[in-house]
Amino acid sequence: MSRPPYLRLHIRCETPGRVHANDIVASVVREHERGALPAGARMAPVRVLEHQLGVSKNTVQAAYDELAARGILAARSREGVFVADRREPLSVAAPLTATPPTLRSVECGLPERFTEADVHLSSVFVDPALLPHERVADCFRSVLGNPRRHALYDVQGYGPLRELIAQRLRLRGMNVETDDIIVTCGSQQALDIAARVIEPRAIATENPVYSLARGLFEMQGLRTVALPLDPFGPLDVEEWRRRLMAEPPGLLYAITSFQNPTGRSYSTTELETILRMSREIGFALLEDDWGSDMLSEADYRPTLRALGGEHVLYVNSFTKKLMPSLRIGFIAAHKSVAPTLLGAKRLAAVGGPTVVEAALCELLDRGYYDTHLARLQTELDLRYHACLESLRELMPEGVRWTLPGGGPILWLDVPRSVDLDQLAARLAEEGVRIQPRPRAFYGTPHLHGFPVGYAFTSPLRLRGALEALARELSRA
Amino acid sequence: MSRPPYLRLHIRCETPGRVHANDIVASVVREHERGALPAGARMAPVRVLEHQLGVSKNTVQAAYDELAARGILAARSREGVFVADRREPLSVAAPLTATPPTLRSVECGLPERFTEADVHLSSVFVDPALLPHERVADCFRSVLGNPRRHALYDVQGYGPLRELIAQRLRLRGMNVETDDIIVTCGSQQALDIAARVIEPRAIATENPVYSLARGLFEMQGLRTVALPLDPFGPLDVEEWRRRLMAEPPGLLYAITSFQNPTGRSYSTTELETILRMSREIGFALLEDDWGSDMLSEADYRPTLRALGGEHVLYVNSFTKKLMPSLRIGFIAAHKSVAPTLLGAKRLAAVGGPTVVEAALCELLDRGYYDTHLARLQTELDLRYHACLESLRELMPEGVRWTLPGGGPILWLDVPRSVDLDQLAARLAEEGVRIQPRPRAFYGTPHLHGFPVGYAFTSPLRLRGALEALARELSRA
Repeated sequence: MSRPPYLRLHIRCETPGRVHANDIVASVVREHERGALPAGARMAPVRVLEHQLGVSKNTVQAAYDELAARGILAARSREGVFVADRREPLSVAAPLTATPPTLRSVECGLPERFTEADVHLSSVFVDPALLPHERVADCFRSVLGNPRRHALYDVQGYGPLRELIAQRLRLRGMNVETDDIIVTCGSQQALDIAARVIEPRAIATENPVYSLARGLFEMQGLRTVALPLDPFGPLDVEEWRRRLMAEPPGLLYAITSFQNPTGRSYSTTELETILRMSREIGFALLEDDWGSDMLSEADYRPTLRALGGEHVLYVNSFTKKLMPSLRIGFIAAHKSVAPTLLGAKRLAAVGGPTVVEAALCELLDRGYYDTHLARLQTELDLRYHACLESLRELMPEGVRWTLPGGGPILWLDVPRSVDLDQLAARLAEEGVRIQPRPRAFYGTPHLHGFPVGYAFTSPLRLRGALEALARELSRA
Repeated sequence: MSRPPYLRLHIRCETPGRVHANDIVASVVREHERGALPAGARMAPVRVLEHQLGVSKNTVQAAYDELAARGILAARSREGVFVADRREPLSVAAPLTATPPTLRSVECGLPERFTEADVHLSSVFVDPALLPHERVADCFRSVLGNPRRHALYDVQGYGPLRELIAQRLRLRGMNVETDDIIVTCGSQQALDIAARVIEPRAIATENPVYSLARGLFEMQGLRTVALPLDPFGPLDVEEWRRRLMAEPPGLLYAITSFQNPTGRSYSTTELETILRMSREIGFALLEDDWGSDMLSEADYRPTLRALGGEHVLYVNSFTKKLMPSLRIGFIAAHKSVAPTLLGAKRLAAVGGPTVVEAALCELLDRGYYDTHLARLQTELDLRYHACLESLRELMPEGVRWTLPGGGPILWLDVPRSVDLDQLAARLAEEGVRIQPRPRAFYGTPHLHGFPVGYAFTSPLRLRGALEALARELSRA
């Protein structure tokens, strides 16, 4: 198509809904007199107007003939109908360039780009080689066997999936019903919809914090109450209480198992203390439980949601443990607030991709997910222990690390004399990438290190990377 | 598993990373003295601590033996290790129920629930029977042939898909490169990320407006400049200018083809007027172009983005035209702002489902999408004309409707004397659902009617519904 686009015109009708040739003529004459029809501009072809206005070809042709007779239009054979060349072309005073938008800045680093060649030592992801790609594909294939079934979406998420998720949570001691579950795009969207609507507009977070949560809360305009977390010691309850009472937040956000970035988990007593403070000071709780099913033991650890009841907002996802690119998470919320959260999700993104939700539902239903989790846990155990063994053997004096007991990461702390940026740069030259995460800390970091992920890298490569790390640390 | 969950404890080590039996003993004694170990509570099994701490079974067993000897723990054969029953159980002063969250209200109606039995006369959706389910399924199957390839995601959206989208836009006269495209969850997420970051915090919208956009902008705390839109007449440029100059917004949001809910499209002159105002008054433009490829004619109509250049934020999606449940849309943004919008998307939801993005990419690449669009347009034409014919034949005096010339909906306006709620109620009894959309208007509605969607319902059923409508209108 090398023809220029035609002019879009409004045809006004005397009787709306009923177009006559006169209406077309009058509309074009009016535009022409206003100077809105530049000479040489192409008019809509007859067949286009015929269709758009729902009139016969003859009606349009009669109008165009009259306009040609008036000297306003000119038909060129095989080319179309054009505005006749009687006037000067409109002089466009300014070029029609729109004003560029002005945007608030957004504090959000770049995502890590994974390369085959490097060891990404701080990744919280699980090695894709451990993920059940074929099982997932089988479930997609099964769902696609009847593709018409999944043409529309449920804003809240595919019903049968929500039902299975609620069942799983009940087995872990949480009192949850199908309608309490809202399926989201990973955990992040669940945090987002809670952050949008919470009152008052302040949120308490761990310090160090999962940095995408920090960025999200800041983008949503929430004030922050930073609660210091020492992964090597108990909770500083008095400091937490002091800060929470000074500015009672709408929500306290906590990752209760294998906290990102420290790998720390809360003890039952600590969870109970948090619940007591929630009652006494009057803030609600947002629990991010991404990690508790990355434990190798069948015994579960009680969650805040199980201990504190149905008013705790509970978030989890299948991202890390199943396949990051599925992007399915959820939030479990009490009936009294679920409709508002659902409204926020609808306004943020309407619904999610049903076919993915249905495939995940099938995976859960067939038991593939549990089989996978059991295998994954065994493999994560091996990697965790191999990592601990290497650390004990290789790390020089003054280096310490947490003992998460599961999950994908631990926190490695190095002496203050080590310059973390220099260390990262030197390791990068050897193909080892570490992420010191300065954005995870509010104020001056009380830790001095970075996460070590044992789930993403095979034990052999991890060993090599830790050897490089030990060499650089000894040199520093 | 009928055993109760065990207590989670922190074991503090003298030397972090190196646990000895003494550390376990000291930690348990400390907790016991604090009163944090209720009598009868279950301790972590030996194998759990062994694993979590990365120590030998003997180390844990030695510690437990010592704690039993001290009278703090008691082992019960085949049951596990428990806190000994020497003290009174801790009295829990208050039940450990978390404080419920307080949420802002969200203005967002419920989504329409589609039923087979009813005719949903105001739906903007396309009849699922017209959608290429099998083609989509084929592309998924092909993508799943190598499921490992799509395990991780690209926050910006699957690269090859962005490339194809950019190509398509260039063919329509828009100067767009692959990296200018951010894939989103439908159009709605694209509007959301723009709304999050735009400065100043005011947005101009059409009145009536697409109501989920209104709800979104209000949830994001944007002030609104409402610009009256009369689908039966030309743009009231002077009124628009007056309102825009009174409060210059950060963005003007417009649906330029087949506006929701009126079905109105802007003429080229009107688009140029909007561009001139953007320059003169200094606001940016957000174009929602959901509809322009629902035209039956191969000739495209120029978009604001094509006329106004690369600073116009351009949003489109494949939702309505391909399959609602895929939930793939995108925003095209100039290099100077794309990174900020991408940051906002990352904080809102991280990435999208790669497998869906890859399947859509394949659909575009194989040409299936264009074949489908051509067929869809032909069918929409038939339905549009059948609808116009029925309206002309059936509607009583005083009823008027727009002539969109394409797309899925027109606006039907009825005499003011008709009570729209009563009309909706009476029609519902006959299985015909209409949606008068009061939330689409700011202030007192200057129109009095509702959208009629001809894309969702077969011509035969639509005819029946319009007959019922005509009967009720004549009675009213």
